[in-house]
This record gives sequence, structure tokens and C-alpha cells, in this order.
Amino acid sequence: MKLLKSHKSFNGHTQFWSHDSYETKTEMKFSTFIPEGKIKGCLIWLSGLTCNEENFITKAGAQKTLAEQGLMLIAPDTSPRGLNLAGEHDSYDFGSGAGFYLDASNPPFEKNYRMYSYITTELYELIQTKFLVQNISIMGHSMGGHGALIIGLKNPDKFKSISAFSPIVNPILAPWGVKAFLGYLGNDQTDWKDCDSVELLKNGKRHPTSILIHQGTNDEFLTNQLMPENFSEAADKANQKYQLKYCDGYDHSYYFIATYIEEQILHHAQYLK
Amino acid sequence: MKLLKSHKSFNGHTQFWSHDSYETKTEMKFSTFIPEGKIKGCLIWLSGLTCNEENFITKAGAQKTLAEQGLMLIAPDTSPRGLNLAGEHDSYDFGSGAGFYLDASNPPFEKNYRMYSYITTELYELIQTKFLVQNISIMGHSMGGHGALIIGLKNPDKFKSISAFSPIVNPILAPWGVKAFLGYLGNDQTDWKDCDSVELLKNGKRHPTSILIHQGTNDEFLTNQLMPENFSEAADKANQKYQLKYCDGYDHSYYFIATYIEEQILHHAQYLK
Repeated sequence: MKLLKSHKSFNGHTQFWSHDSYETKTEMKFSTFIPEGKIKGCLIWLSGLTCNEENFITKAGAQKTLAEQGLMLIAPDTSPRGLNLAGEHDSYDFGSGAGFYLDASNPPFEKNYRMYSYITTELYELIQTKFLVQNISIMGHSMGGHGALIIGLKNPDKFKSISAFSPIVNPILAPWGVKAFLGYLGNDQTDWKDCDSVELLKNGKRHPTSILIHQGTNDEFLTNQLMPENFSEAADKANQKYQLKYCDGYDHSYYFIATYIEEQILHHAQYLK
Repeated sequence: MKLLKSHKSFNGHTQFWSHDSYETKTEMKFSTFIPEGKIKGCLIWLSGLTCNEENFITKAGAQKTLAEQGLMLIAPDTSPRGLNLAGEHDSYDFGSGAGFYLDASNPPFEKNYRMYSYITTELYELIQTKFLVQNISIMGHSMGGHGALIIGLKNPDKFKSISAFSPIVNPILAPWGVKAFLGYLGNDQTDWKDCDSVELLKNGKRHPTSILIHQGTNDEFLTNQLMPENFSEAADKANQKYQLKYCDGYDHSYYFIATYIEEQILHHAQYLK
């Protein structure tokens, strides 16, 4: 694990790291905020399409609240990098920058595009063994909100709490999700359902805490890609506790995230004592 | 004046604008944060080398405090753009992205590189006539800290208060300043002194309020470019009130700015009632 950059930031440090990943078989990068003093827990932040490890940590303004709460945060890149697989760099919503937090089964992606295992196993263990923080929660934005929901619902013992901004809750019905799942998983829709939060709820997956979601009403992707009402309908039927907060006038950008990041961090803080 | 983008952000809007400038004779861009409700005053933020109108508004995390205080902020680009003057794009610290907040007298820059007049006259009037905000203060970072200091000291009636992060306080002795002044102003050092905060203090310029400066002690440019002790020495001799706050371990980055931006905004808020 290599420390690339470190900036003092509030009462702690914003840092950038790289390491050789055994899951993706590439060098992976991530950013962290590490407060001074005793660390109560760690938030994993999963970013959206086109992002890398820098977007959240530079734009969300999360450090102040993290510092106040004694929480660290780790924000990994959104896909393997440095490969040149067929079709990998052709579009913004598939391949590099668009790993979709699943384990690909389709060639040529199946050896490296293993973001689900990377997050739930490799990065999870790295937080516990290298940063020595045991309590871990998960959150994300858009594609990363989808990632946080499926990872949290499938691993309720590993992740203390779940939240999301503008998540792709039902990717099997969203153009972004259909494209990604076809490319990474192939035609068998049984595999797709294992990577879809609405389908996971229908199939019995639950998280013991209330899942917190913020969704802007002026989000340009609201009706065709995000469809949050599909989540609330499935969660109601499944008796999964959740709070879906519609935020009037906000869009899909980091200006929206910055506005509500404090509320989401405080949500997790209550489960990371 | 053209609104390019608008994002709801805390209780207001983060926006991006362009307009045809009569000072630079180019299209100039700026970003704003405009809170809802009654606006008490406006902060002009001047960015540093290589920056444009986006850096501060995306990275500093200023919107929360601005919203709470009922203040707007305007962050202009750091130079004219879209020209192709000889030598304009050859280096990061001269020409485009490096206007140094002065009016050039040297060809080929003298017609367009008029950032001093652009800020003190054109942008100032635009705030008062288009945004209808009368009380204006000024702040900035590095090259923009230099800009805030010289503009505030030369116009104490127009700008209610002054603050800076890591400013180039004595550019006539700093490699960045010498290069810029030679290129924009020519060899006559009399002209240079009119664009140097330490020299302005020596020559009788004062501001009625206490000038607030934050400076990181791990700033990579501290000793060879910034030299804040030259400012404190000149201000002491001149009986100019100031607070120079050395911040232990912080560097030259926006992570430092984000940490102390609330304190600087609150400093200005007391003069913008």
C-alpha cells in the first residue's frame, strides 16, 4: 500500500493511496480521510459513473463532519484501470469508470472487473488490517448508490448501515443497468437480479437498520434511470425500514451531495459507535 | 450576462455565468453562490495560478456558511481566455490562468490583461447593478491573495474587508511576481511597487479593518514565494491592523482552504451587515 499524497484537512488528513489488488489484478487507487485521535468507524463511499477516487473527497465537503464525528472515510476508484480490454474505453457508462460494483462473468471482463469482491472482501479487510478500523458502513451516489444498496443488503453483518444519494435502485429496468449487465454478466437475467436492490428485497434480503436515501426532484435521471419509487414499493412490501427523502429542486450533482452529506454521515455515526 | 449552469446548493444556488467584458475585450466567466432571501453582502473570491471560475466553488465547501450568513460570493476566472497572444500559453505562471490582478502596460498584453480594472470596476459594478448587492468585500488564495490585498488596500472605500489564504504578499521579491511583472509591466520597478502589498503599506496605503491572513506552515511555497513575514513587518511599521494566522501542518491546497473558509467568511460577515 503506497501513500501518494497527504494533505492536512480539518483535524485530520485527506490522503491518496494505491495498492496492488488481488481481486482486479491491477493497481487500484483510493482516497481516505483519517481524523486525528480515536477512530470510531469507517464509511466506504462508492462513486458514480465517470468518477475516480478524487471526485468525492474534493467536492463533497465531508471532512468537517467526519472530523467532528471521529469517522474515517475511504473512496475507491470506480473500476480497474490500465487495462485495454475490447470495448473497455468506448463509452462513459461501461468499462473504465463504470465497474457497477459487481463481479463480471462475461469475457473479457471476468478476470479484472470484480468490484463487488474488491469492496466486500479486499477493501473491507484492508480497512480492518491496515487502518485498524473494525466498524464499517457503506454509502454512494448514483451507480455507487446502487453499489451501496446491493452490497449492504447482501452483507448485513459486515456493513452496519447503508445510505445513498440518487441511487440506481432498479438497474435491470434502467438503460445504464441493462447495458452494464449485458456486457458484464451476459444474457441470463437470473444473474442480473442478484445485482439489483429492488430484486434483492423481493428475494428476501434485508438490512436491520433503516436505509437512508436522498433524491433530488430536479435530477435529470430521475424517471428514466433512478426510479426511486420502485425501491420504496419493494421495501414497503418487504418490511425493510428506509427513509426516502425527496429534496425539492436539487439535481444529480455534487452540489446536491454537499448539501446533505452531513445528514448522511450523522445517520451512519449512530451505528458506528 | 448569460447563465450557463445553475445547481441548487444548500438554501441557494451555485451558478456559472459568462459575459462580454469591456475591460478584457473577451468573454469572461465567473461562478456565484446566491443564497435565498435577503442578501447582506458579496464576497469576491480571487483564485490562484492555473485556476478558473470553477476551482473555488467546487472545492472550498463555502456554500454552507455563505447560506447561513446570507452572503453571496462571486469567483471570476483568473485571466482573459480565447486569445492567442505571443507567449500567453507557454507557462502555468504567466499569461492564461495567471492574470495577477493588474493592468498590463506591456505589449501584447496591455489591451486585454486588465484584471485589476475588471475586478475593481466592471465586476464591482456588475455585482451592484445586476445582482443588486451593494456591500462588497474581497478575499483570495496565493496569486488571488495578492490580488485581494492590493485591491483592498488601494480601494478601502469600495471593499469593506480583506482576507487571504497563503498570499504572495511581496511579489516584487518572489520569482512568480518578478516573472509576471516583467512580462506585464516591463522593467520599470516603480510600476511594480504599485502592485505589491508590502510596498503599498510602505507607501501609505491602509485599510480601516483588520486584514485576516491564514498561512499553512507546510506550504511548499512558504519561504521562496509567499514570505508572509514581510507583510507582518510592513503592517507593524504602518500600524495596519492584521491577523496573520500560521496553521500548523497545512499545505497550499484547497484542503487547507476548506478547513478555514468558515472562519474567513465569518470575518467578512461582521463588516457586511
